[in-house]
Amino acid sequence: MVGSPQIMPDIRYATGFTAPDPVVYLQEGRKKFLVVSPLELERARRVTQGVIVQTAAALNIRRELKPTLLGWALGLLRQVGMHAVVVPPDFPIAVAEKLKRAGIRIRVAKDSLFPQRQVKTSNELMHLAECQRAAVRAMVTAVRHLKRTHVDGKGFLRAGKKLVTSESVRVLINKVLLDCHCAGQGTIVAGGRQAADPHEVGFGPLRQGESIVIDIFPQHLDHGYWGDLTRTIVKGPPAPALLQLYRAVKAAQTAALSVVRAGVPASRVHATAVRVMERRGFQNKITDGKAQGFIHSTGHGVGLAIHEMPRVGQQSTRLRKGNVITIEPGLYYREIGGVRIEDTIVVTALGWKPLAVCAPVFQV
Amino acid sequence: MVGSPQIMPDIRYATGFTAPDPVVYLQEGRKKFLVVSPLELERARRVTQGVIVQTAAALNIRRELKPTLLGWALGLLRQVGMHAVVVPPDFPIAVAEKLKRAGIRIRVAKDSLFPQRQVKTSNELMHLAECQRAAVRAMVTAVRHLKRTHVDGKGFLRAGKKLVTSESVRVLINKVLLDCHCAGQGTIVAGGRQAADPHEVGFGPLRQGESIVIDIFPQHLDHGYWGDLTRTIVKGPPAPALLQLYRAVKAAQTAALSVVRAGVPASRVHATAVRVMERRGFQNKITDGKAQGFIHSTGHGVGLAIHEMPRVGQQSTRLRKGNVITIEPGLYYREIGGVRIEDTIVVTALGWKPLAVCAPVFQV
Repeated sequence: MVGSPQIMPDIRYATGFTAPDPVVYLQEGRKKFLVVSPLELERARRVTQGVIVQTAAALNIRRELKPTLLGWALGLLRQVGMHAVVVPPDFPIAVAEKLKRAGIRIRVAKDSLFPQRQVKTSNELMHLAECQRAAVRAMVTAVRHLKRTHVDGKGFLRAGKKLVTSESVRVLINKVLLDCHCAGQGTIVAGGRQAADPHEVGFGPLRQGESIVIDIFPQHLDHGYWGDLTRTIVKGPPAPALLQLYRAVKAAQTAALSVVRAGVPASRVHATAVRVMERRGFQNKITDGKAQGFIHSTGHGVGLAIHEMPRVGQQSTRLRKGNVITIEPGLYYREIGGVRIEDTIVVTALGWKPLAVCAPVFQV
Repeated sequence: MVGSPQIMPDIRYATGFTAPDPVVYLQEGRKKFLVVSPLELERARRVTQGVIVQTAAALNIRRELKPTLLGWALGLLRQVGMHAVVVPPDFPIAVAEKLKRAGIRIRVAKDSLFPQRQVKTSNELMHLAECQRAAVRAMVTAVRHLKRTHVDGKGFLRAGKKLVTSESVRVLINKVLLDCHCAGQGTIVAGGRQAADPHEVGFGPLRQGESIVIDIFPQHLDHGYWGDLTRTIVKGPPAPALLQLYRAVKAAQTAALSVVRAGVPASRVHATAVRVMERRGFQNKITDGKAQGFIHSTGHGVGLAIHEMPRVGQQSTRLRKGNVITIEPGLYYREIGGVRIEDTIVVTALGWKPLAVCAPVFQV
């Protein structure tokens, strides 16, 4: 593997080491090798266990290749005496082509080189629970804040004289996350029409009677694991259509959770959520070229990446004990708003356990 | 280009669009094409200008390829009628191999496909200055906080009864950045021996008389540009050796800045900083396999990536008007500590301008 561990969780998973700058990682049987820049050498040796960490200086390569990732990879392969490697699907093509020209045979793996990342160890579960607790703490703070706001004559939420905006609530959430040693870079606080777009982070003033989707996904600043939690809030009484949306999503989440256990195909969990919502009349439809309804899958794995395997969608992969997944059905209609409810859970032999408990909440 | 715009600044640069999920971007002459997931379609169309944004649904591809990046790329190439493409060096090998099998000729570019990113437009300079001002504001807050601490009987800094730690100062800084609509994910607050490792983010209690390196690099949450600022602080009088280190680094920065202007080779700026420090007796040396001294380059470009071209190191590339670079000499000795002073500047025809002004500071 060649690249920055910060954006390649497999390297962090294999070594425990992370950095923004690129590294080269090689594994041969149980032997693990890492080449890092001289600036990282000491830290990399300190944080890794059972990994042979070197810099280019220790490798037998031509001088002009010393500062290149190709040189690091080639030097390492020669040192270990390997002439053929398996690389991940996202391996950089320039390095691959030059390795081939240097006589290295390359096979491209079909999937991730670390499928075992899907089944979490007890240590990983501890880290994930820590992040999920941070998300819960931030959610509780945000909900309490929204509860305390009042509504002005134009229907806008205000805290004292100040307008309450997506931005102001997001800052509040992210500060709680910082206190928990987590970063919340993409925190979603999206109201009204914005809430009907599941990837809109949200901006501007929040209003009464509209759905406000709050999606908090903190990454721990040290160990790098994630949490993921969504609640949908409405200040004051919701319109009847919005209340029905909420009830359908809540029922879908309950139903989806009720079928989760080790051995069940992920697709059955997704189909369960879809069925509950369809029975209540919430079908997918296309309006002005835009898909509306339940327009994403029911969940995804969470670990050293915020989105990882297993997906909880149309794939029939069976859930396994130790999977950490989100269950997050949602409904999105431009004229009504958006509702998503998300919890992150651990799959067990007989069912599931929450990573951290967050009370249901809707009207505040 | 194929991948997540969040980790591929070239896609964001070309389109103005960012998302964690992967996209496919194609350019033919002045025509720009982007394929995104249905979830992103509306937002992508809203934030881009002059880019034809589509989803896989609009492309003529086989059903089983619809959910794959290969399918998106292939469908787009067929739609545009192209049979040969240039891809960036980090293009994912799996997609490249499958495109080749489908009859697409692929040439791998030697460098970035967007070298123009190195020369900033006035709009980009505005964004960068905004981030740099956020960094200055956070630095001022951190320095004021350290100034107000007192030293306990064991030499630890305390705010009231509380120990002042790398972590507590980092949270303070990151909260100011959040108020400026920026994220400070890697903020360094490293004291004592930790300060002698330029990539150590820092942990634990801070002490009097030791260097404390504070390196703040905020990324704006909306537009994605970065700022970069470092000061080295000491509480109470520094040891004479540490004071000399500080003076050498300060003199090196002043000297390096004095030679910056459009047309000057970046290597001359670096060599100037090296020379000033060597004249004061600060040579590079290896102790126990660890490099000590001025062990990194003098600077780097800043833009949509925190580290980008041009590098200010041993390369002889000439600086150009509109480059935004850091000038950040540093000295690192395990027995004395580390000192780094960094400002981010715009290269002009006759010299340079600061992106935002931050006063020099050392003893507080």
